[in-house]
Amino acid sequence: MFHLAPLPPITFGAGQAMTLALPGTPRSVLLIADPVMRDLGMAERIAASLPCPCTIFSDIPGEPKAATLRAAVAAYHAARADVVIGLGGGSALDVAKITANIAAGSGEPMDYALAAAPLPPRAAFTVMIPTTAGTGSELSATNIFSGDTGEKLWIWGVETRPDLVVLDPELTTSLPAALTAWCGMDAFVHAFEAMTNRNGTPATALFSEHAMRLIWRALPVAVAEPGNLTARGEMLWASALAGAAIDLSGTAMAHHLSHALAGCAPVQHGLATALAFEASLPWLIETPTPKMEAAARALDCAAADLPAKVSGLMDACGINRALPAAFQGVTVAQAMTQARLPGNMPMRVATDRDVTDGDVERLLGAVLGLA
Amino acid sequence: MFHLAPLPPITFGAGQAMTLALPGTPRSVLLIADPVMRDLGMAERIAASLPCPCTIFSDIPGEPKAATLRAAVAAYHAARADVVIGLGGGSALDVAKITANIAAGSGEPMDYALAAAPLPPRAAFTVMIPTTAGTGSELSATNIFSGDTGEKLWIWGVETRPDLVVLDPELTTSLPAALTAWCGMDAFVHAFEAMTNRNGTPATALFSEHAMRLIWRALPVAVAEPGNLTARGEMLWASALAGAAIDLSGTAMAHHLSHALAGCAPVQHGLATALAFEASLPWLIETPTPKMEAAARALDCAAADLPAKVSGLMDACGINRALPAAFQGVTVAQAMTQARLPGNMPMRVATDRDVTDGDVERLLGAVLGLA
Repeated sequence: MFHLAPLPPITFGAGQAMTLALPGTPRSVLLIADPVMRDLGMAERIAASLPCPCTIFSDIPGEPKAATLRAAVAAYHAARADVVIGLGGGSALDVAKITANIAAGSGEPMDYALAAAPLPPRAAFTVMIPTTAGTGSELSATNIFSGDTGEKLWIWGVETRPDLVVLDPELTTSLPAALTAWCGMDAFVHAFEAMTNRNGTPATALFSEHAMRLIWRALPVAVAEPGNLTARGEMLWASALAGAAIDLSGTAMAHHLSHALAGCAPVQHGLATALAFEASLPWLIETPTPKMEAAARALDCAAADLPAKVSGLMDACGINRALPAAFQGVTVAQAMTQARLPGNMPMRVATDRDVTDGDVERLLGAVLGLA
Repeated sequence: MFHLAPLPPITFGAGQAMTLALPGTPRSVLLIADPVMRDLGMAERIAASLPCPCTIFSDIPGEPKAATLRAAVAAYHAARADVVIGLGGGSALDVAKITANIAAGSGEPMDYALAAAPLPPRAAFTVMIPTTAGTGSELSATNIFSGDTGEKLWIWGVETRPDLVVLDPELTTSLPAALTAWCGMDAFVHAFEAMTNRNGTPATALFSEHAMRLIWRALPVAVAEPGNLTARGEMLWASALAGAAIDLSGTAMAHHLSHALAGCAPVQHGLATALAFEASLPWLIETPTPKMEAAARALDCAAADLPAKVSGLMDACGINRALPAAFQGVTVAQAMTQARLPGNMPMRVATDRDVTDGDVERLLGAVLGLA
């Protein structure tokens, strides 16, 4: 049995971010933008295209914090916003989604973190415009931030899904090659893990299989030809679909490992996930399940062929198999402590193979060997 | 550029039709059921599972007429219904969708036929439960019936989309082998034509490619093993997705021919469509478009290989290449008259190859040669 809830409406096309269809006559827009989009002038261009005043909030660190959210809520109230637009990667979109929802309540993120209290009904109309093709946050109800003492937290709620998703490939052409590759692999792993984990359903497979096939052909092109709007568009569409897939079924072992690593030292999420996926895939498919065979079939191969194919994709995208220098000296024991945090366990449990501590230790060791 | 509007919520699973999640406390249900579902006792079983009185309306001919709709509207008012459930193939679902909408207005179908007037806001909650895996009517905003003088009419409106779709494979196990094959081929052609016609977008391809791949492996199994719930479920899911695809982009040449044939003599829609598809596919792919190559790639072949593959699928499903006896004596000129009706032109125009009258005549002649 499965249930497929309606996705938010999605508008796709080059230039669509500059002609947003907002309902009625908006009073004031809060545009929550990644600093990169601000520096590129994209946030200003979108603001100038709107039919009402627009406040740009772009004080967003790579990993949003509770303080980031409090500042965004203050900006929301100062602007008397009735529309919130998120523009950027997963961080900016998560800040925008959380802000629009908690601003209608206490405005204090910790009141809602880890489902401490139900989210209030949202007052603002929200639009999410992703500018990396990776997280799929625009179609997800999970929103990540760090608490005041650095702990990883989430606010979950279908109420945080946007009223409109705009996929505009022109916004992604400036993404550097390495980030394009890392974010694209993150989307690929979302699609693969969502459909092959214990929670995967035929509805997940609809989104995952299509996303994997698109990424397979588009990602190397997007890396090699940054201005190729067809490949950029296919990546944007695929990563949104992969976001729909994880929204249905979550992720699995590669994300379990990746989150544990991220707890030890700073690392781009897509890179950590790609390295963890490549390290864990041969282990995962030792006894392939029907879901794993179905995922492989979508890529025109058998499950046993997947590790070589995935490594080939990463080669084609020029991904250097190395963790940042900050990981030198990080021990498996440190990473295991992170892996065992309660927030990290659902991904281990969802993995469609029984997982021992020894498995996690060995796989973390393999990735840490790349430091 | 494309826009993907939200699909209705979909619940899938064996037995789900007997545990419908209706909102609040319904007052009275009008269950619009195919006569076959009534005769099999399925309509009674669903009625008995409901928490409120239920009136069963099953006076539905193979091709619903304006009079059918008037009688259904009268039943709706007599029952003081606040829930309308459609149970059956495309005919029963179309009657249910139209009834629930026009009953809130004048109740007269001709007032709304061919978009004569906008549909009123619906008062009843609607649930669509398909029992054939073919039309995809449960996810479509197009609803077909015949006028008082026999002319084919439609009522279109996103307002007619249901509040809930329930896909219960147990309801489809009684479908005879020939109907299973014909309806399944109809769904396959929906998926193929929607993504490959001039209106096809990447959103169409999401639904179409998945539907085609599912039908490819599940349809021969469903024909050979009527009780195989996995294959029946895959067909039901695939035909719904194909319905979502035609709702986005419509159909093309095979449906143009099939509708023209149906205007000449009675023929099951899926059979006419399958025969028209097999006859027209070699012509269509003489100069394959990128969309046609993409459709072929989803089936792991090149466009040039599609005619042989499709014929192989029809063979595997035991489809006898024959029109009903009533077609003996029907001339190409008669069929051309039907093909030229205004309601039949959009499918010709959408076909992604320039179509001459000579093409249509030749292809209609080829299908009529099977009479």
